[in-house]
Amino acid sequence: MARRFLKMHGLGNDFVVLDARTTPLSLTGAQARVLADRRFGVGCDQIIILEPPQSAGADVFMRILNPDGSESGACGNATRCVASLIAAEGAGRDRLTVETISGLLPAVRHADGLVTVDMGPARLDWRQIPLAEPADTLSLDVAAGPLSGPCTVNMGNPHAVFFVDDAEAVDLPQWGPQLEHHTAFPERANIEVATVVAPGRVRMRVWERGAGITLACGSGACATLVAAARRGLTDRKADIVMDGGTLTIEWREDGHVLMTGPVATAFSGELDDALLAGAGR
Amino acid sequence: MARRFLKMHGLGNDFVVLDARTTPLSLTGAQARVLADRRFGVGCDQIIILEPPQSAGADVFMRILNPDGSESGACGNATRCVASLIAAEGAGRDRLTVETISGLLPAVRHADGLVTVDMGPARLDWRQIPLAEPADTLSLDVAAGPLSGPCTVNMGNPHAVFFVDDAEAVDLPQWGPQLEHHTAFPERANIEVATVVAPGRVRMRVWERGAGITLACGSGACATLVAAARRGLTDRKADIVMDGGTLTIEWREDGHVLMTGPVATAFSGELDDALLAGAGR
Repeated sequence: MARRFLKMHGLGNDFVVLDARTTPLSLTGAQARVLADRRFGVGCDQIIILEPPQSAGADVFMRILNPDGSESGACGNATRCVASLIAAEGAGRDRLTVETISGLLPAVRHADGLVTVDMGPARLDWRQIPLAEPADTLSLDVAAGPLSGPCTVNMGNPHAVFFVDDAEAVDLPQWGPQLEHHTAFPERANIEVATVVAPGRVRMRVWERGAGITLACGSGACATLVAAARRGLTDRKADIVMDGGTLTIEWREDGHVLMTGPVATAFSGELDDALLAGAGR
Repeated sequence: MARRFLKMHGLGNDFVVLDARTTPLSLTGAQARVLADRRFGVGCDQIIILEPPQSAGADVFMRILNPDGSESGACGNATRCVASLIAAEGAGRDRLTVETISGLLPAVRHADGLVTVDMGPARLDWRQIPLAEPADTLSLDVAAGPLSGPCTVNMGNPHAVFFVDDAEAVDLPQWGPQLEHHTAFPERANIEVATVVAPGRVRMRVWERGAGITLACGSGACATLVAAARRGLTDRKADIVMDGGTLTIEWREDGHVLMTGPVATAFSGELDDALLAGAGR
C-alpha cells in the first residue's frame, strides 16, 4: 500500500509528515535515510510521524526522527506545522496540544494562519543547560575566534548565544563546529550569533548541533530572545530574523517562551512502493 | 487546480516531471525557482515538462528547465526517465522516441528495467562545441590549477573532459566554475574530470554548467566515453562510474552515442495551490 505524506516547512526548516494515527508505522534507520534523502527519496531536515496521543489532554503525539533514524526531543518549527495540520482538521478548534517525548506543547492557530507554540520554560541553571561545571549562564567563559562570552539557555536542547556587532560577518562554518563541541558543553550545544538591530528586532544566524548551518531554528530563536532579554538588550518580546524568515518570540513572566510564525505545505505525495521496500526493514 | 507531478531520478540526477500534454503549462523563472527549491518547493536538478510531440515519429516532447527557469537542450538522465514513463504507458511498446529542442532521441526500455537512449552523434568540430576560435578539440589549450588540455565534445551541450590520475582528488568547486566560464567556451561548458581505472571502466566527476556538482550527468558520461575512445584510453564501450551510479556508454561506428542505465520514481505528488501562485506569474 502506497504511503501518503505531506511536505511542510516552517521558515524553510522542512519536514516529511507521515500520519500513523490509524495505521502504525515504524521506520528503520535505512528507511529514514532514504526518505530524508533529497535526491533518492523525498528530502527533509526531519521526519515527523503523527501517532495517537498518549496523555490525557493531548490532541496528537508527534514523533520526530532525524535523517539517521534517531529520535529528536523537540523542534519548534515541526510543532507549529503539526499544530496547523491538526487545527485544520477540527473546524474552529484553534487551541490544541501537541505531545512529544519531551512533553506537552500547547499551540494556537491564529486567524491569519500564523501559529503560536508554547515552547515551555527557558531553563537557565548551569546543570540544566547542561554545562560541564558551575558557571554563570549569563556570560560563559568560552571563546573561539571573534566569538566570546555567550549567554547559555536550554529550550529542550542546549544553546549558546553570542551577541556580536554584525552577525552577517561571522564565519559560522569555521567557529560553529568548534563551539558546538567545546568541552564546556557535555551534550554539545547549538550555536547562535545575534545582533540587536532595533528595539524588538534581532538578526540571528544558527549553527545547529549535529546539522550545521540551517535557515531557521525555532528553539534557537527562543534562546536568542531569552538571552537578549536577560542581557537587557531587548524587551521580553521581539522578532528574531533568520535566513529562512522571522519568528516572533515572547518570554512570558511565568518563564514560558511563546513562538509565533508561519507554516506552509509545499505539496502532498504518495511514496513509490519500492522506495521504503528497497531500503529494507 | 492542484498540479500533479512525479519525482524521478536517474542515478540521483533528479527531476520534477510535469505532464502538460493535455493541459498546457508555462512556468515563470520565479515559479521554476520555487519548484526546484529543495526546502520551500519540491526540489530537483531540473524540471521536465511533457508536451505533445511536434514532429512526426516522436512520442512525446520533453522540455527541460533549469532551476533558474532557463531552458536546457538535453539531459540524458531525464531522457531515460521520460522514455521509461512513456514506455510504461503503452503496453509492450518498448521502443520509442523522445523529442527535445535539440532533436529526436530514440530509446529502448529493456526487460530488466534499464533504459537505453540514443543520444545522437557526438559532435567534434570546434564550431559545434562551440569554441571561441579554431582549435584542436582532441586537446584544447585551456587550463586551471591541476587541470589542462581537455578533450571537448558536444553531446547537445558543450563538454570539456579533463583526464587526470585521480578524479577523486580534484577540487571541483574551485576549478569547475573557472573552467565553465573560460573564454574558450562562448556558451560555457560542462566540466568533467575522469580517470581510466580499468579497460572498460572510467571514474568520472562532473561540474554541470549552471548547476555545479551533481551526482551524475548523462551527456557528461557520453562525452567522457567519446573523449576516452578518441584518446585511445578505452574501447568504444565502457562503464562510466559517477557518484550517483554507473552508466554504460557505447559510441557506435555511425557516430551515435548509446547510454544505458537505471531510472526510478521516488514518489508522486500534488503541488499545493499556493506554491506556484505565491511565486507570481
